[in-house]
Amino acid sequence: MADEQDLERKFKDQCAVFGVYGHPEAAHLTYLGLYALQHRGQESSGIVTSDGSSHCIEIGMGLVQDIFNQDKLALLRGDMAIGHNRYSTTGESHLKNAQPLAVDYSLGSLAIAHNGNLVNAVQVRSMLEASGSIFRSTMDTEVIIHLIAKAESNNFVSRVVEALLQIQGAYSLMLLTEQEMVAVRDPHGFRPLAIGRLDNAYVFASETCAFDLIGAKYVRDVEPGEMVVVSPDGLKSFFPFPKKTAAQCVFEFVYFARPDSTVFGESVYSIRKQMGMALAKEQPVEADLVIAVPDSGVPASLGYAEESKIKYDIGLIRNHYVGRTFIEPSQQIRHFGVKIKLNPVRQLIEGKRVVVVDDSIVRGTTCRKIIEMIRGAGAKEVHMRISSPPTTSPCFYGIDTPTRGELIASSKSVEEIRKYLGCETLAYLNRERMLAIFGANKEKFCTACFNGQYPVTMPGMDILQPDLFESVS
Amino acid sequence: MADEQDLERKFKDQCAVFGVYGHPEAAHLTYLGLYALQHRGQESSGIVTSDGSSHCIEIGMGLVQDIFNQDKLALLRGDMAIGHNRYSTTGESHLKNAQPLAVDYSLGSLAIAHNGNLVNAVQVRSMLEASGSIFRSTMDTEVIIHLIAKAESNNFVSRVVEALLQIQGAYSLMLLTEQEMVAVRDPHGFRPLAIGRLDNAYVFASETCAFDLIGAKYVRDVEPGEMVVVSPDGLKSFFPFPKKTAAQCVFEFVYFARPDSTVFGESVYSIRKQMGMALAKEQPVEADLVIAVPDSGVPASLGYAEESKIKYDIGLIRNHYVGRTFIEPSQQIRHFGVKIKLNPVRQLIEGKRVVVVDDSIVRGTTCRKIIEMIRGAGAKEVHMRISSPPTTSPCFYGIDTPTRGELIASSKSVEEIRKYLGCETLAYLNRERMLAIFGANKEKFCTACFNGQYPVTMPGMDILQPDLFESVS
Amino acid sequence: MADEQDLERKFKDQCAVFGVYGHPEAAHLTYLGLYALQHRGQESSGIVTSDGSSHCIEIGMGLVQDIFNQDKLALLRGDMAIGHNRYSTTGESHLKNAQPLAVDYSLGSLAIAHNGNLVNAVQVRSMLEASGSIFRSTMDTEVIIHLIAKAESNNFVSRVVEALLQIQGAYSLMLLTEQEMVAVRDPHGFRPLAIGRLDNAYVFASETCAFDLIGAKYVRDVEPGEMVVVSPDGLKSFFPFPKKTAAQCVFEFVYFARPDSTVFGESVYSIRKQMGMALAKEQPVEADLVIAVPDSGVPASLGYAEESKIKYDIGLIRNHYVGRTFIEPSQQIRHFGVKIKLNPVRQLIEGKRVVVVDDSIVRGTTCRKIIEMIRGAGAKEVHMRISSPPTTSPCFYGIDTPTRGELIASSKSVEEIRKYLGCETLAYLNRERMLAIFGANKEKFCTACFNGQYPVTMPGMDILQPDLFESVS
Amino acid sequence: MADEQDLERKFKDQCAVFGVYGHPEAAHLTYLGLYALQHRGQESSGIVTSDGSSHCIEIGMGLVQDIFNQDKLALLRGDMAIGHNRYSTTGESHLKNAQPLAVDYSLGSLAIAHNGNLVNAVQVRSMLEASGSIFRSTMDTEVIIHLIAKAESNNFVSRVVEALLQIQGAYSLMLLTEQEMVAVRDPHGFRPLAIGRLDNAYVFASETCAFDLIGAKYVRDVEPGEMVVVSPDGLKSFFPFPKKTAAQCVFEFVYFARPDSTVFGESVYSIRKQMGMALAKEQPVEADLVIAVPDSGVPASLGYAEESKIKYDIGLIRNHYVGRTFIEPSQQIRHFGVKIKLNPVRQLIEGKRVVVVDDSIVRGTTCRKIIEMIRGAGAKEVHMRISSPPTTSPCFYGIDTPTRGELIASSKSVEEIRKYLGCETLAYLNRERMLAIFGANKEKFCTACFNGQYPVTMPGMDILQPDLFESVS
Repeated sequence: MADEQDLERKFKDQCAVFGVYGHPEAAHLTYLGLYALQHRGQESSGIVTSDGSSHCIEIGMGLVQDIFNQDKLALLRGDMAIGHNRYSTTGESHLKNAQPLAVDYSLGSLAIAHNGNLVNAVQVRSMLEASGSIFRSTMDTEVIIHLIAKAESNNFVSRVVEALLQIQGAYSLMLLTEQEMVAVRDPHGFRPLAIGRLDNAYVFASETCAFDLIGAKYVRDVEPGEMVVVSPDGLKSFFPFPKKTAAQCVFEFVYFARPDSTVFGESVYSIRKQMGMALAKEQPVEADLVIAVPDSGVPASLGYAEESKIKYDIGLIRNHYVGRTFIEPSQQIRHFGVKIKLNPVRQLIEGKRVVVVDDSIVRGTTCRKIIEMIRGAGAKEVHMRISSPPTTSPCFYGIDTPTRGELIASSKSVEEIRKYLGCETLAYLNRERMLAIFGANKEKFCTACFNGQYPVTMPGMDILQPDLFESVS
Repeated sequence: MADEQDLERKFKDQCAVFGVYGHPEAAHLTYLGLYALQHRGQESSGIVTSDGSSHCIEIGMGLVQDIFNQDKLALLRGDMAIGHNRYSTTGESHLKNAQPLAVDYSLGSLAIAHNGNLVNAVQVRSMLEASGSIFRSTMDTEVIIHLIAKAESNNFVSRVVEALLQIQGAYSLMLLTEQEMVAVRDPHGFRPLAIGRLDNAYVFASETCAFDLIGAKYVRDVEPGEMVVVSPDGLKSFFPFPKKTAAQCVFEFVYFARPDSTVFGESVYSIRKQMGMALAKEQPVEADLVIAVPDSGVPASLGYAEESKIKYDIGLIRNHYVGRTFIEPSQQIRHFGVKIKLNPVRQLIEGKRVVVVDDSIVRGTTCRKIIEMIRGAGAKEVHMRISSPPTTSPCFYGIDTPTRGELIASSKSVEEIRKYLGCETLAYLNRERMLAIFGANKEKFCTACFNGQYPVTMPGMDILQPDLFESVS
Repeated sequence: MADEQDLERKFKDQCAVFGVYGHPEAAHLTYLGLYALQHRGQESSGIVTSDGSSHCIEIGMGLVQDIFNQDKLALLRGDMAIGHNRYSTTGESHLKNAQPLAVDYSLGSLAIAHNGNLVNAVQVRSMLEASGSIFRSTMDTEVIIHLIAKAESNNFVSRVVEALLQIQGAYSLMLLTEQEMVAVRDPHGFRPLAIGRLDNAYVFASETCAFDLIGAKYVRDVEPGEMVVVSPDGLKSFFPFPKKTAAQCVFEFVYFARPDSTVFGESVYSIRKQMGMALAKEQPVEADLVIAVPDSGVPASLGYAEESKIKYDIGLIRNHYVGRTFIEPSQQIRHFGVKIKLNPVRQLIEGKRVVVVDDSIVRGTTCRKIIEMIRGAGAKEVHMRISSPPTTSPCFYGIDTPTRGELIASSKSVEEIRKYLGCETLAYLNRERMLAIFGANKEKFCTACFNGQYPVTMPGMDILQPDLFESVS
Repeated sequence: MADEQDLERKFKDQCAVFGVYGHPEAAHLTYLGLYALQHRGQESSGIVTSDGSSHCIEIGMGLVQDIFNQDKLALLRGDMAIGHNRYSTTGESHLKNAQPLAVDYSLGSLAIAHNGNLVNAVQVRSMLEASGSIFRSTMDTEVIIHLIAKAESNNFVSRVVEALLQIQGAYSLMLLTEQEMVAVRDPHGFRPLAIGRLDNAYVFASETCAFDLIGAKYVRDVEPGEMVVVSPDGLKSFFPFPKKTAAQCVFEFVYFARPDSTVFGESVYSIRKQMGMALAKEQPVEADLVIAVPDSGVPASLGYAEESKIKYDIGLIRNHYVGRTFIEPSQQIRHFGVKIKLNPVRQLIEGKRVVVVDDSIVRGTTCRKIIEMIRGAGAKEVHMRISSPPTTSPCFYGIDTPTRGELIASSKSVEEIRKYLGCETLAYLNRERMLAIFGANKEKFCTACFNGQYPVTMPGMDILQPDLFESVS
């Protein structure tokens, strides 16, 4: 469920990238793709196109549908395009940090769109500044473009490899020059990136739901460590980096991705439902009713109901008109922040023993209010079931999680959390059980947010998240 | 399902009214109430307050959260307020038609908020114009206020009665003078209007979900033909009109009302689910999967699944970022209009016999595309089930339905519709079965949209909807 | 000079009206006409057109160029149009008070645009309310339209006469039905209204500068008490009112009208310059330099310089980018409000005896600051010369003057004002001298603001301006 | 007079810079300073402040008063600030080109505001790109910041010198780090930059009218080739560049600067008027009336009238509400573009021999229309007098002039121009006469736009303005 200050999305999302090569309506398809990927970033959006000799750029703050219009799309000439949605931060959100980042350098024009987070960006930036580079944004992405500009090769693709060998962390990137497009995933493959076809054009997207909207066909993922280059010579694949263990983000299945997407080769909806089923097997409870915290808890709750044979119903109704800002009344209204978004169906809940399924708990404050609200609607018992393990550790690979200290599960036991939430029982899905769903692929995931085992460490992780390493030893 | 040109709402909705009497935060509570009732009207919103001696007014085009801000609410002084959300029309939507309508007349200030539609507005307006009245809007509501201004009594409440005796049709009204508030439902009680309490204040709303948000308690409905007057003397009830057969809008349960509301004394969610169960009993089918057309088809689909013992799953994912405007690509994308809103989960649907449940069919165009889309996702069979009877006749009581000619069920048999839609089977819920859900209250509903039996006829019904009376005889 | 809180215009202006009959680009020409008349009203603008059978309306808050665009003009179909600019009020400015006021009534559609002010509007409104009329604005103009709607004749023109016979005060009106246009000036002719031709079309405007822009030719004024009706039968003239003494607003020449306009048959620039010459004859002074308070004081200062043979120079430079809002620094800056608009040319003023010419003094606060600023730039002596008599009395005929108490000349002698302003000498133009400029027409003017002799009195003048009649006896 | 496509300003202006060091209201004073300098750039504005340890930035498109509000000023913390107004280009105007340009580099934060134009920017940019620099704008200013970032010294001021030694052309710069402010003019001193004091604070501005508004005192100019550094140690002056001949822009006096400013130590108003007097001596004519093309021609026309003893009057009235966009009617209106801005006073002009004074002629198209308009108002003879020499050559030092081919005087003789314009006589001020006004300083000016003698040449001048060097031999 959402924390009160963020009624729309539980986590600050981690951006979306999109690309089209070789289609006369490249800008328009990118607009549609970004639209389908809006859930991955609502702060800003941008599209850069190339007509073979120069770039056209449109970037703005806000939602895709508010930034682009017929006139702006018409200005985006050319049959190649890359696009980007950026996540929403609280407080200052600046256009200077919007992507794609587009520059001129010695080989011509270059634009980049990045999903992920570099762990050694601060170090690389210092090094670059020492050699005379200037920075106009606070994005880690800017170091990549500097590294490419300073690389020694005369060949663009070689320069990209040279640059990427110097950075560590999570990146799914789309790069665009006047005539070439590069799609690349870091060696661990933290963030997704899929390849599709639409007629003769190549398309790329963070999630396949973008392909569905434009009628493109999903072909395969860009693999961890793979660099795909599309040019007038066609599509070529390279694996220029030392091989690393795959560490794909399991949280894409828990929360981020749209349920109708295929991510890392798996149906998000199907995995999410199996999580609910596994949870029901592992954490059964006598009850009359299974309800979900909408919308992210719905697939798992259906799985829980199916497996447990307890009736599923829609106990919490979501207001579809919730906007960004809301003026609170001065008079105290109980559970106000939660009520703006959700309202229980009393006739359904009254007198029942209710299983409430959600995908995860962050700070616990909203969950507590929802439980209180359900109890206020007459529930006899409330059994909270979470379709993922306790979230104990922050993410450094592109998700804007709270600090460790704010994550309720980082310092409290499940029983302590249950007491805080005020429910009869509380249970999470075990990490091993969760991974078992993926069968043979179970080793290919990053689960750092659940167990603090970070595939890539960064100098200064302890400074950025000071309370993290105190408790890890 | 939504028709393509109206991605958000299937029917032009029929407005919401709200009122608060005797609360220091009257304007703010009205803002919240209108917010909870946003689904009943997205074109414009307005609030009029009274501080006991004069009115304050804020009205604007758009959504509640976009029109009002802290500064505007602060200008709305006083402990009484009425508010209104207006439906969205295509094409011209003018501020001059926004409500509440606020005027000065001989007894002072008067504001009115109206949900419903008068059937003799044109005649009354002609009569008023002949006697020298001027009209600044095209709203039927304006005639009510003229009739009150021209009434002969020196007493406000008597004037209201005098005025309402001259009009026919559907109206749930909130009226506000400097010191009094009147809530009234027409003798047939077409549209809902509920009374609640919040501490010592009286509150009124089209649906009880507005009470839930502000923490008010639902007391009872304003009854058909009842006029409730709140003044410094407290609340008084009158039944000034000749008694008529109740004709409450059954479509509130089919589609309009939020599922968490209580309308006409019944839980919307519960009725909607029972419709699905009745449909499953009446119209069973061999299948592997029940899915809903979100969101309006969800409760009925759960009822269908529960009764039929066929597994329920979420086969269509809704994009939550769908806005008002959308730039279509010049290249044809299959089912584009529907895809903007919905995307099937292929892994779930592929190879399955699927029951698709929706609440109603209007023109059939969108439904046809959805069925084609589901089939494109690999469904072996598609069985369409509609949780209400065929919609054959337009509404004249406050719902902006298409003309009779546009309603597919007005001219086509179920089998013809099935062929048009392209599904294996199609079945609707029988009208009698539907009404049976309401038990003893089954006679208290208007079902004109299903059987063309209009409780109140209007001169010129045949002109406004010329194709209506041709086929009715 | 402008008072500090109103950097743009000294008086709240009194609105502009415009009309075109029989031109295929009627809306566009009206847009241009209103643009040329922008100085007469900056709060709101509106255009109503007729295509012979129905009206099209566009009204908005702000400047003409901000309200209308190509799309809106295209919606304004038809070859007849009337338009209106409304003055700017401080505090609340509501769209509901924007004009033209457009309504439907028994004879069809009717729109009205009004420049002026009715003195018996309150009484007529009370009477109308008593007979059942409702009011949606606070404009006196609304009573005119009610009177027309309630008139007994079946003929539109007769109804207008019937209505206007019931009102008193200042009005230059443009009326538009589906097929007729009426232009009328009250019997005193307070406010201007000119007739022009553009090819075969008739055009009407508050000032002739609007004709110049669209290339129309000025024909003559609508005369005081004249009603001009243009219809498919051509233009007809009527004098339906009892004859009254002409009382044309002399302040149009002092301040309101654009200098390039012809008003009441006279060149504004020429009259304004003659006022300066008369002032120089009547109020000479030994000095080195004549400067103007721009822009309204410029023509008179040129006249003063020409007559006195003292050198004219531009001592005060106006900032052309002054906007509506300005954020003041917390630290005190001397003469800040005036400096935002004007800056002296020190090299010109230093050590000089300076004659400063302005058209009028309202409260005296700004004038005082300008004098202090000029002295701060090194002037040895400052001689203030005002090209009109002392403004002692408020206007009730369409100008939003301050109350009598705020007019510095209402309670202070010229010597007292001089002391307050801090200049060496102060002199005004004598009323008789001013009128003498008009030769034989000298009796045709209202000079109530200078001598308190009101051509039309109103019941309640003493209530609205309580301090007015105390000192008048 | 303005060319038709640019109703507001004749030339694309050349930007304004402003700076404050050591004042608690630094941001607010910069806002006011930019406001006073609005005439030098209307496309975009920006302010960067420092609180001693970090920068705050606000930049936007449009006018100063539209970009900044109370909230934004409050975010601009610190007692140092620099600001910039950018000129208006037709077609694409991008936020990425707005200034100040603010970056992070090895020594910390750095912001720069630039008035002028570098002649070797293209070469330096190529060199920088070859060494790995990336460019995010198309501004020449960006090369300066790269050169500073790549300089070898550890000392900021030395780095600036190192950087500036590599560039050629026109620059008046304001630089801001966390604790230091640098103001510098190129060795030729093309563009102005003045130093003032406000209490204990230092202030800098392109023109002194900015000092007048904030109540600061003008102290002196930054001299050509001077670099002024303000830091916690106070103000220090350096002359780090090889001495060059001063080449201050004489066109600041002809057209750019506000008449109330002191530029290069001279009163703009006074110089402009002397130009008119010199013109009258050199180019006398028998006439009845002297009028100006407002506003830029006014001071010279006063000088002309004073010297010639011919009466000065205001023959052309300017519409003060002219905005950026204007919808032209489809029907041809004579002189429409000019009439939007200016209207002649017929009563003044009719039957007269008129001297029309303007400051310069660019393409001649607008001048021709004005002359035709004056003749249309009844002038018997029109004598055009230009208070500067014929403009024959484009500027490469910060003014966005048309190409040589578009300048009418580049290819036509005075007599040919006269014929084109359609006036009885045409005369310009002789270059020597013009310079003589400056007495001993007459050698310190750049007059390249009048005689094609460029103080600094650039590689590629002939490419950017291909028609320039064809005709120069």
